[in-house]
Amino acid sequence: MKIVSAIKRVPGDIKERLQGRFRDAEFYFCHGIEEADRYLAEADIFLTYGEDLTPERIRKAENLKWIMVMSAGMDRMPFNEIAERDILVTNVRGIHAKPMAEYAISMLLQVSRQAKILIEQEKNHTWNRRPVMTEISGGTMVLLSTGAIAQEVARLAKAFQMRTLGVSKSGRKKPYFDETYTIDDFEQALSQGDFIVAALPSTEETVHLLKPEHFQLMKEDAIFLNMGRGDLVETDVLLNAVRNSEIRHAVLDVMEEEPLPAGHALWDEEQITITPHLSGISPHYVPRAFELFEENLEVYVSGSGDMMNTIDPKRGY
Amino acid sequence: MKIVSAIKRVPGDIKERLQGRFRDAEFYFCHGIEEADRYLAEADIFLTYGEDLTPERIRKAENLKWIMVMSAGMDRMPFNEIAERDILVTNVRGIHAKPMAEYAISMLLQVSRQAKILIEQEKNHTWNRRPVMTEISGGTMVLLSTGAIAQEVARLAKAFQMRTLGVSKSGRKKPYFDETYTIDDFEQALSQGDFIVAALPSTEETVHLLKPEHFQLMKEDAIFLNMGRGDLVETDVLLNAVRNSEIRHAVLDVMEEEPLPAGHALWDEEQITITPHLSGISPHYVPRAFELFEENLEVYVSGSGDMMNTIDPKRGY
Repeated sequence: MKIVSAIKRVPGDIKERLQGRFRDAEFYFCHGIEEADRYLAEADIFLTYGEDLTPERIRKAENLKWIMVMSAGMDRMPFNEIAERDILVTNVRGIHAKPMAEYAISMLLQVSRQAKILIEQEKNHTWNRRPVMTEISGGTMVLLSTGAIAQEVARLAKAFQMRTLGVSKSGRKKPYFDETYTIDDFEQALSQGDFIVAALPSTEETVHLLKPEHFQLMKEDAIFLNMGRGDLVETDVLLNAVRNSEIRHAVLDVMEEEPLPAGHALWDEEQITITPHLSGISPHYVPRAFELFEENLEVYVSGSGDMMNTIDPKRGY
Repeated sequence: MKIVSAIKRVPGDIKERLQGRFRDAEFYFCHGIEEADRYLAEADIFLTYGEDLTPERIRKAENLKWIMVMSAGMDRMPFNEIAERDILVTNVRGIHAKPMAEYAISMLLQVSRQAKILIEQEKNHTWNRRPVMTEISGGTMVLLSTGAIAQEVARLAKAFQMRTLGVSKSGRKKPYFDETYTIDDFEQALSQGDFIVAALPSTEETVHLLKPEHFQLMKEDAIFLNMGRGDLVETDVLLNAVRNSEIRHAVLDVMEEEPLPAGHALWDEEQITITPHLSGISPHYVPRAFELFEENLEVYVSGSGDMMNTIDPKRGY
């Protein structure tokens, strides 16, 4: 069995652990797709970030039985060719939950505790205890999404003794949520939130889901945070909401235009904080992805148990 | 029964709630001690921040049976006079736990996630995803103290899936700590910490407890945070520790000299973050203090149950 990886810079200890544990397999750890191309024709299993797989490569990899996508987004996967050959696909769905939940809590604390002002005071050698800090503990958090990432945020929010309201298509109950709402009646939830955290993918239903009237429904001192997709809300709707003081602050890790160009109005708006789409970045990404792969490989080799995060190539998720 | 309060700006809803619940009591809500002085001679119960009580005032308050100190520090209380008259004293010990725990988590996230750099990038309209962020989840936290504040920090740390090591005089086991150490063997704990959080009071044993060798024991990428008392460590010891890269960063809410004067070396040290002794400040302080008072008053009036946070005037704590 030949396992070909196109993942760059795999740490040595991970390679050794895999080779030690799966002695019957031959591993080819390649530095990117060009190097991996050489081994693709014989590969049984291929590890990729999913952006480099073309229909040609799928045809060339005639032994291929399983593609492990070390990413959660799979927009560029040639699913038609994969489905025809009935190749198994798994991904690392959920891997962003931990860093993104830390991001959300971190940014809500940063805004609530006036970090920008305190850092400015430090720079100016100013000892001033008057900036009014609020606590996040005991507040109400509304999460747009009840998926893996939103659940991890809600779990931390519960540790801060918050009330957690989740919004999803089905409104089905999910762990760590005190209440759940469907997208059809989510206005009820919005008006209760001290913190509105969006972690939605971009779909037909979510594009421009948030309209001016939704921000008008929110509390005046609510903090809105978007770390899902930028097309959830139009830039002008956001700018108007903070300029009209409909909300206290907006934290945006994603926006309609990325990278946000220098000079864009969002950068300088005092009640908006911009981060460059980094909520999911983690130094633990590659180790965590390989842990998922390793567990799946054990199932694949032993034939017992269920593989995690399998994807239906016909549906693409 | 006459209840005199010297606490300024008590919210109206708190006054109404107390008067509604304890109809046999006469409440005098005064704006500070000067106004309260008028009623002190008849007071059965006196509410104070504890800084304005002189021996003369204790003598004047000849009916006084109970002093509720709406503060945790009681350095200026005339305990001799209070002990002579056998006046009951209670305080709001533990009230700082929630804001201080939020402060600690907030600052550890701020440093780990490079907030200063990201805020600077935002100011310069720079879209740059390369600043290396680390996660706090899964790390090891060493807490100097296992008291109420430290326990609340440890509780949140457990939600971030950290290992929590506590250091106290006795080394006794406490909730939310995976391991506890005595001050005599705390070096063992120090060397394991990704985060070293100090929340110790100033006592004979804690003054200059942390010496240069302790910082040398710490991990090179450890973050040290002090929100207890500034005399835990000499300023020069701290400056040397960060300048010699013995630790990654120091977060100081307390220091030897407060307020820290402009021009002091601590302000400009890149690997030190200064906040102006505000970790315990909370907009919920007064409501929380009155909630504690209210529960104690219920016990006092009904004669059933135990009062919380009673102080032995002979020992002062």
